[in-house]
Amino acid sequence: MHTLSDLLEAHRSGARTLQDTVAEVYRRIAARDDPAIFITLRPEAEVQAEAAALAARGDTSLALYGIPVAVKDNIDVAGLPTTAACPAFAYVPEKDATAVARLKAAGALIIGKTNLDQFATGLVGVRSPYGIPRNPFKADLVPGGSSSGSAVAVSAGIVPVALGTDTAGSGRVPAMLNNIVGVKPSLGLVPNTGLVPACRSLDCISVFALTVDDAMAVLEVLAGDDDDAYSRPLPLAPLAPPPPAPVLGILAPGEREFFGDADAAAAYEAALARWRALGAKLVEIDFAPFAETARLLYEGPWVAERWIVAGALIEKDPQAVHPVTRAITEPGGTASAADAFRAMYRLKALRRKVEPTLAAIDALVLPTAPTAYTVDAVLGEPILLNSRNGTYTNFVNLMDLCGTAVPTTVAASGVPYGITLLAPAGRDGEVASLARTFMAAGSLPLGATGAPLIAPPLATPATRADRLEVCVFGAHLSGMALNADLKAMGGRFVAEVETAPAYRMKLLPGAQPRPGVVRVGAGGGTLKGEVWSLPMEGVGRLLATIPAPLGLGQVELESGRRVAGFLAESGEVADAPDITPFGGFRAFAESRQAAAG
Amino acid sequence: MHTLSDLLEAHRSGARTLQDTVAEVYRRIAARDDPAIFITLRPEAEVQAEAAALAARGDTSLALYGIPVAVKDNIDVAGLPTTAACPAFAYVPEKDATAVARLKAAGALIIGKTNLDQFATGLVGVRSPYGIPRNPFKADLVPGGSSSGSAVAVSAGIVPVALGTDTAGSGRVPAMLNNIVGVKPSLGLVPNTGLVPACRSLDCISVFALTVDDAMAVLEVLAGDDDDAYSRPLPLAPLAPPPPAPVLGILAPGEREFFGDADAAAAYEAALARWRALGAKLVEIDFAPFAETARLLYEGPWVAERWIVAGALIEKDPQAVHPVTRAITEPGGTASAADAFRAMYRLKALRRKVEPTLAAIDALVLPTAPTAYTVDAVLGEPILLNSRNGTYTNFVNLMDLCGTAVPTTVAASGVPYGITLLAPAGRDGEVASLARTFMAAGSLPLGATGAPLIAPPLATPATRADRLEVCVFGAHLSGMALNADLKAMGGRFVAEVETAPAYRMKLLPGAQPRPGVVRVGAGGGTLKGEVWSLPMEGVGRLLATIPAPLGLGQVELESGRRVAGFLAESGEVADAPDITPFGGFRAFAESRQAAAG
Repeated sequence: MHTLSDLLEAHRSGARTLQDTVAEVYRRIAARDDPAIFITLRPEAEVQAEAAALAARGDTSLALYGIPVAVKDNIDVAGLPTTAACPAFAYVPEKDATAVARLKAAGALIIGKTNLDQFATGLVGVRSPYGIPRNPFKADLVPGGSSSGSAVAVSAGIVPVALGTDTAGSGRVPAMLNNIVGVKPSLGLVPNTGLVPACRSLDCISVFALTVDDAMAVLEVLAGDDDDAYSRPLPLAPLAPPPPAPVLGILAPGEREFFGDADAAAAYEAALARWRALGAKLVEIDFAPFAETARLLYEGPWVAERWIVAGALIEKDPQAVHPVTRAITEPGGTASAADAFRAMYRLKALRRKVEPTLAAIDALVLPTAPTAYTVDAVLGEPILLNSRNGTYTNFVNLMDLCGTAVPTTVAASGVPYGITLLAPAGRDGEVASLARTFMAAGSLPLGATGAPLIAPPLATPATRADRLEVCVFGAHLSGMALNADLKAMGGRFVAEVETAPAYRMKLLPGAQPRPGVVRVGAGGGTLKGEVWSLPMEGVGRLLATIPAPLGLGQVELESGRRVAGFLAESGEVADAPDITPFGGFRAFAESRQAAAG
Repeated sequence: MHTLSDLLEAHRSGARTLQDTVAEVYRRIAARDDPAIFITLRPEAEVQAEAAALAARGDTSLALYGIPVAVKDNIDVAGLPTTAACPAFAYVPEKDATAVARLKAAGALIIGKTNLDQFATGLVGVRSPYGIPRNPFKADLVPGGSSSGSAVAVSAGIVPVALGTDTAGSGRVPAMLNNIVGVKPSLGLVPNTGLVPACRSLDCISVFALTVDDAMAVLEVLAGDDDDAYSRPLPLAPLAPPPPAPVLGILAPGEREFFGDADAAAAYEAALARWRALGAKLVEIDFAPFAETARLLYEGPWVAERWIVAGALIEKDPQAVHPVTRAITEPGGTASAADAFRAMYRLKALRRKVEPTLAAIDALVLPTAPTAYTVDAVLGEPILLNSRNGTYTNFVNLMDLCGTAVPTTVAASGVPYGITLLAPAGRDGEVASLARTFMAAGSLPLGATGAPLIAPPLATPATRADRLEVCVFGAHLSGMALNADLKAMGGRFVAEVETAPAYRMKLLPGAQPRPGVVRVGAGGGTLKGEVWSLPMEGVGRLLATIPAPLGLGQVELESGRRVAGFLAESGEVADAPDITPFGGFRAFAESRQAAAG
């Protein structure tokens, strides 16, 4: 039993005690025999006592009831040292980070604090005085970083879920290298209170899991504003079936950079083929502004944020900081404010430049990392190979995107590859839903556990979080007088539809012919309409323009699905001419034109 | 004839030719005899030729048909030098700034380029090698800055409207000192393409006018996204009657700083008294975070943005830059990126801190400037007195607010005072509407023209731009089960209401009793409900939660006013029990409880 969802069900049904689960965690830690995974591991007896207290309370409805969780060691857990993988920096916090407090309140059991690239600076997992966690999926590869210990602990089946952090890719690159899922939330969705910053304006706490469902179950617990300056109230849609033909942005062939790794190139092609088979529409995007943004992160002034965290220690005791981390951080101490503003101007321009690209797609689909390096290779060339790892991740937080990294294929060499789905902040649930669909269509085992993925079907949700589908019947139809208004409100065409055979269409009085649709049940006809997707704000604007006796209610489609749509107050249109036999307003309007012509 | 609206009407009706208007502008310039107002004044013949061509085209529907406009000399007008009040910096642009191009396209006639504090750094109007424009309202006072020439040109009646810019208060402080209106738009509402930056991340183009109506007529022409990195698509609501009892945030007595100016203190009190008389609810706010933000602007790293603009010139030729401007700008060359990020962290925290304050009010009402200094005083103490002028303006762009400055009273000494209304970005129209109401209730002449203010009544608009009023009848009522949802969607209670006597209330089937309201016309009753104001996005979210047979349509209130509100599909509720005699769902629910108890 490896997944959170299985464990939770077993805990709730009593099929498994919390005590057994904790014992199993420590058995697996012992079996793995890798002292580099945890920087601080809690004594088993202490966690067992906590499990016993939780079981005694008996509140099995808790969202993470008895779920063991590992926490990256740059996130505060009260009473355990926070080291950020730098012993000279360590302190013992009195308070849990907000994220940790929320995990505990939801019934999670914190097992320990995991290893990381020092100060969360790195994508490799080899920059720590606490050793290099062994990659459980392929032993000669780096574990990935900076969230190395958390990703390894999940892949090895020690814990079903773990917290990482992600500034430049630290929550995604290790997911790929360990054949697991990495959810990198929108900046501010999970509060950073109690996190040692890497770049404070760009950090977020991330989640590793074996499945998207498990990661999202944790994210739902973590999400929500607190008083951290960078936290913000953002929507989080539940997992739901994604649109049947999602539009996905992909790399043009000429912009695919795998640093000579043919297996990585093949893995990306295979991922795109799977998306095509799933009905996605793939469109090539211009990657240049994303690539330029990625370079800004380490070549630009944001390194000064790292200096703010580690600079005082470097100045006082240079030897206390890992030499590679020191080399990367030191230029941050000399960057000027003018350079910082210039870089921000450039970033602002780059963000504007990609807006139309991102608005036109449901998500970007990029390789998570361009290739997978061995420990030996990275130790031999520690900065260059690390920076290559960030080709497809470094720009993400600067661009204010959210993303989910999922495994795609394992090459014959045994190297795991992955893709990351990305979209603007606030669409975490939608992106995760796409990632879930993609993963469910594959056949990889989970992490290094060998367990198969079982993805139960999802119920059709009533709505997505940031947009609503609205069925129109009259002047808002494509090509008609008010259609431009719909587009100005952010509307996107979804589909032509027919209603269930339960409606009648009346012709409203007035200079401009307008239809009014009413539900009559038996005796009704089928009416043609169009479903448009509107941002929630656009729905409000649309309603503001609708005169009585029209309004927005629920319309039943022929499929039985209900969507929001235009309805008329039936008492007000009882005496109006019935135009139901036309089967829709377009046919009616054309017949009028024909009659007039 | 002084206002844009009067001129426009006269041009359209033919009561006045464009030629006469242009001639009058140049007569007034000659009469004023102040060479410090314009840095570049176009030859009259050239403007007359343009006016003749415009008249020949005959498109009198243009929004600014034949309106003379002055433009601050840090905004590009093709073919005229842009100096930013620094001769060594001057260049002749080939293209109009976006704002200027939009003015011209709307039929405006650009008269010339106006004087300013060099590089728009200053709030006084005395830091220019082109002289100090004489304050037309009270000659010994500074004209205010940095948009000195534009404000003076409007106050003196030379042009009805003029463009300024505003980074720290340059579009507001001169409005007060010249007894005119200054509209400081939300950052990005008017594109900055073609503007010499002061602090590029905080600059905006502003509008001076004699009336709020005139300023908004110009802003409507200027507003709208272009490809400038800092421009953004923001709503702009039309002028409309503000809420009958607006909630306004004011300074607590202990936080009012007028630097010993008793007249200024009295003017603020008088303004608050007028607001009370207008029915406003005044609430004291905590000004400390705003004051701390104001200090960040000049004491923090944003000065590096000024260095980016002027630093190269200062290094090459220090004498080419005004000594005060140089002294303020030079520290920007040595600020570090780490300092910049630290200040941004602090700003982020301060912005979070004031969010609840701003969310609870319709606008802040602050003095525009704490006092009015004479030219002699400012020349004697150029930096300290200037910085005092920014007490109530410096924080505004850092906090991402929009505002309108209006005159309040003229002291017995002849000194004009004013207030500024402020709200978060995107509420420009709402803030201007409040300012218009306030000004219309006063009796000051316009600028220094002596002309009276004539503010015609505004039609009640169907809707405000960013919120919609929704009438609820059931579980969304205050204190009932779904009321918290309404609040979570950003809902604010507006009023208890009754419908027109044309509705019936049905009891829908289901475990939870819910009412369904249908319009029946004659034979209907009056039903109690509550009107809540929701952000447009919240309306969409609300609709997403509403199950059939309920929806949102138009509800007629007892007053005859129609608002959006909950209605049921009458065909679906025909057989449901009628609970109209209870007069509302609350009375029905209470009767049930009484029966059960």
